[in-house]
Amino acid sequence: MFQTFEVATRPENGPPRLSALRQIMAEDGLDAYLVPRADAHQGEYVAPHDEVLGWLTGFTGSAGFCAVTARRAGVFIDGRYRVQVRAQVDTDHFTPVHWPETKLWDWLREALPSGGKVGFNPWLHTRAEIDKLEAELQGTGITMARHDGPFIDRIWPDRPAPPEEPVTAYPDDLAGEPQADKRARIGKALAEVGEDHAILTLPDSICWLLNLRGTDIPRNPVFQAFAILSADGSVRLYRRDGRAHKEIETLLGDGVTVLPEGMFDDDVRALSGKVRCDPKSAPHEIALALEASAATPVWGDDPCLLPKACKTKAELDGTRAAHLRDGAAMVNFLAWLDAEAPKGGVTEIGAVTALEGFRRATNALLDISFETIAGAGPNGAIVHYRVNEDSDRAVSPGELLLVDSGGQYLDGTTDITRTIAIGEPPADAVASYTAVLQGMIAISRARFPRGVGGAHLDALARFPLWTMGRDYDHGTGHGVGAYLSVHEGPQRISRLSDVALKEGMILSNEPGYYRVGAFGIRIENLLAVIPAPALDGADDRDMLAFETLTWVPLDRRLIDPAQLSPAERVWINEYHDATLRAIGPRVDGPAREWLEAACAPL
Amino acid sequence: MFQTFEVATRPENGPPRLSALRQIMAEDGLDAYLVPRADAHQGEYVAPHDEVLGWLTGFTGSAGFCAVTARRAGVFIDGRYRVQVRAQVDTDHFTPVHWPETKLWDWLREALPSGGKVGFNPWLHTRAEIDKLEAELQGTGITMARHDGPFIDRIWPDRPAPPEEPVTAYPDDLAGEPQADKRARIGKALAEVGEDHAILTLPDSICWLLNLRGTDIPRNPVFQAFAILSADGSVRLYRRDGRAHKEIETLLGDGVTVLPEGMFDDDVRALSGKVRCDPKSAPHEIALALEASAATPVWGDDPCLLPKACKTKAELDGTRAAHLRDGAAMVNFLAWLDAEAPKGGVTEIGAVTALEGFRRATNALLDISFETIAGAGPNGAIVHYRVNEDSDRAVSPGELLLVDSGGQYLDGTTDITRTIAIGEPPADAVASYTAVLQGMIAISRARFPRGVGGAHLDALARFPLWTMGRDYDHGTGHGVGAYLSVHEGPQRISRLSDVALKEGMILSNEPGYYRVGAFGIRIENLLAVIPAPALDGADDRDMLAFETLTWVPLDRRLIDPAQLSPAERVWINEYHDATLRAIGPRVDGPAREWLEAACAPL
Repeated sequence: MFQTFEVATRPENGPPRLSALRQIMAEDGLDAYLVPRADAHQGEYVAPHDEVLGWLTGFTGSAGFCAVTARRAGVFIDGRYRVQVRAQVDTDHFTPVHWPETKLWDWLREALPSGGKVGFNPWLHTRAEIDKLEAELQGTGITMARHDGPFIDRIWPDRPAPPEEPVTAYPDDLAGEPQADKRARIGKALAEVGEDHAILTLPDSICWLLNLRGTDIPRNPVFQAFAILSADGSVRLYRRDGRAHKEIETLLGDGVTVLPEGMFDDDVRALSGKVRCDPKSAPHEIALALEASAATPVWGDDPCLLPKACKTKAELDGTRAAHLRDGAAMVNFLAWLDAEAPKGGVTEIGAVTALEGFRRATNALLDISFETIAGAGPNGAIVHYRVNEDSDRAVSPGELLLVDSGGQYLDGTTDITRTIAIGEPPADAVASYTAVLQGMIAISRARFPRGVGGAHLDALARFPLWTMGRDYDHGTGHGVGAYLSVHEGPQRISRLSDVALKEGMILSNEPGYYRVGAFGIRIENLLAVIPAPALDGADDRDMLAFETLTWVPLDRRLIDPAQLSPAERVWINEYHDATLRAIGPRVDGPAREWLEAACAPL
Repeated sequence: MFQTFEVATRPENGPPRLSALRQIMAEDGLDAYLVPRADAHQGEYVAPHDEVLGWLTGFTGSAGFCAVTARRAGVFIDGRYRVQVRAQVDTDHFTPVHWPETKLWDWLREALPSGGKVGFNPWLHTRAEIDKLEAELQGTGITMARHDGPFIDRIWPDRPAPPEEPVTAYPDDLAGEPQADKRARIGKALAEVGEDHAILTLPDSICWLLNLRGTDIPRNPVFQAFAILSADGSVRLYRRDGRAHKEIETLLGDGVTVLPEGMFDDDVRALSGKVRCDPKSAPHEIALALEASAATPVWGDDPCLLPKACKTKAELDGTRAAHLRDGAAMVNFLAWLDAEAPKGGVTEIGAVTALEGFRRATNALLDISFETIAGAGPNGAIVHYRVNEDSDRAVSPGELLLVDSGGQYLDGTTDITRTIAIGEPPADAVASYTAVLQGMIAISRARFPRGVGGAHLDALARFPLWTMGRDYDHGTGHGVGAYLSVHEGPQRISRLSDVALKEGMILSNEPGYYRVGAFGIRIENLLAVIPAPALDGADDRDMLAFETLTWVPLDRRLIDPAQLSPAERVWINEYHDATLRAIGPRVDGPAREWLEAACAPL
């Protein structure tokens, strides 16, 4: 689908580009310069135009940044990327820095003299980021210096242009609510708290609000834009591609004005009244523009976040349909894998290609929802592993294969992880898989009172591993969009998330266990939050529960029935029975036979 | 032990006292007056001198307050006391108000005209309480009016005097740290954050810091005092009883000055530098005194809270010994109950008396640690039920008896709940007890990374009930002192507690289930937080775990083995085996035989 940007990220490109950057830093009087992996919209994927971090350093992970001084260049990466960064950057010139263990302000304090000036592009950093940095640097004499001109363009002559892909309407019958109604509803919510406008900078918020989609960014069906929503429900949309402005206005009707992107900054400066702005996502530049206006800033959540997370009935129905379609593709893949892998000819790249082929064969796949993770044996233990030609590994008997993947369909976004035993699995892998599965089942079975958030449920998924003295270093679950980003907030299943779960939210449920050098295990289903179904013997309590959306067998070769509670065994058998009924009619021949065997009672 | 204060709390006393209060309110120009169940030290138990709420209204619950206007008198009580309040107050003159559902400010706003003056004693309300109330009343024209003279004394001529009981030393070998070392340690911690003094108003903080104990308050071995701790480790202690001041100074040596209580307020006014004061516990009056001083207030936690919660090795050893002693008393009680109750002659009061007798027979009991709860049948479903002569109920076959009790021993404080089947239990009671037990076991078995707090573990205890559509409306666990208060902070197992658990903390683990009109179930052990023991197959992770402190059998007649996971069954058998080994040598004759049968493998 979308071509990712490969050619420029070879390590040998780094040093000359670094020299060029240092030269313009010196010309502009900067002692340091920050290169984040970010665009002005803070998404997980960025367009080639914004792959400055990859272009400069060679590092292509989904998070990180480079801090450059005249003598040092630190590439700050978190635990997911400690192996990858060493393979991708020229470590003679770039130094990987463990982050967040090492704080940027400490690094800068050590690297710079008092009076040092740290340049940054104020469109690429949020208000919250720069506030924190300035607070921590207080008293050091080091100052932050906005530098928002075409700084990088001076040293990157063949830089790809910013994306201006077409914008398309998202059907009302899939969205479940016309965009005019959404604008009126969110505008009213602003009015109720006495606010006059809200600044929107997140593409998925804007796409959701206006029932629009785009292809500016890989894996996320969004377009890049900014917007100002007013309490009367009217929207001013700031979009790069001038040609399409009239078309969008015609499509959306009264209440939406489309303006050139370049006017956004000035329009924010011209605002008055009370204006909501999200410091966690708004570019620093926009926060400054708001502060320079006559308006009173109200720093708070993007008002679309929570309403977007609570899916409409149509979005849930669409998501259910997408999961049945995607589940059939997964079953075709797993049947193929079980037939081919024991012969020894399947590699990680082969598995990724085959799986994408099965998804494409649905004739409904619009994109994959993120880069497929397929890690065999020890590669499975690298949490955000993306196979490439150098790391590719044959899938060998006695190993586990971890496959985390998903599809973007017009009616919904999927995300599923299955871990598969190739041949006879080692005993410890079985005990570990069973513990991970027990955690996954606990979340799936949970009923809970309203008010409970991800921080309260997270331990249910970890408990079976904890009692073995084990754990996993990632969250248990993230929000998922409806033909939008596969990672969306505000809800999560994580110790750090106190957002109460609400009806209609979609979450992943993906505990894992990673034995470095040996295997990785992760099991992931998507869940929707629903009112708890009636139950014999239940008290009269207002509770919520999860509806499982993903229907793909769990690898029974990796389950130790002796570890299970009676209720867990019942859950597995019921899950497989429901999977057979849901997916059986959608697959044929050997895949159907494979599915029947995979779904037999334990 | 301590005589609680009974005679004045008859409903018929209420109306004349209420009239008297209204008259002095009118004389002093107050439109409302607040009567909290509190002293200046914010404990759960108060001395008879401070039982103003009980004296006025008849209500003797452990939490609540009365708001009196010329025409209304609202008794604010939470869910635990909705039945009790109606039995204790004259509802022709007092109106029970559901709290916190009804906010005091809303009630005042409705009851008072603009310009209304709400009198309160600023020693009996915390800074945080009054701040919140004033913030919520802003714009209503209703104001709060301090009234700290002998207001109630004018209408309560035979009011008991404030307590002035002797103060005694707590042995260093039980405390595990000499008081001079504690003062130096906490003083240093203040110095490290740049603070010069800390104001202490909580009796258990002061008792802990100075290795002292007292008997001013029922059930809590503390004395009432205030203190100012300075960064150099010196303490000024403000204590009512002038006769003992020299003795205490001699006992504690250099660095401690004992002064009359009446000087505290003025000494706070004379402070300078940075002064820590806890807005959640300091009286409003003291917060005002601090603000009137030359000092810079630092609003933050009482600096003794966390160090006191993390017990020394000596405190843990003492607590273990206390639990063995208390466990033997409990086993004697349970054996007696099993022999006597089926005959039909045991009442709730009989059970309470017998249990206290067995504890007293240890010759080491200094007090019970709270009023014993013994609820038979439907009385068990009243969460904070305290039996009295009117409510007393025979324990009948086919019912459950819930007994929640504890002892104060010099070496430790205990708190244990057991639920016992009398005769053949109903099937639903067995399923419910088993679910409660599964939650209790999950907490007991938990290993968890450092940083995890009670909010993260709470769901483990509730999960088995949640999956049945059930829950309980109280926290899962509270901190427990070492020969101090049976309820202490800062740690809790509750969705509302994000305090990270630390080595040495003692917590209760007490899930429950309450079927109104039928039965109550609660199972409670105390736990200590310890470094997770070595475990085969564990990863190299720095984890914590719980050590069980309570060794008393669980009622096997109430356990359905078919509901249990393999790991849960192992835990129960190991717990019973360890209980037999720990308590067996401490009981004789029929109790020993009963214990052996109770501890046989499932």
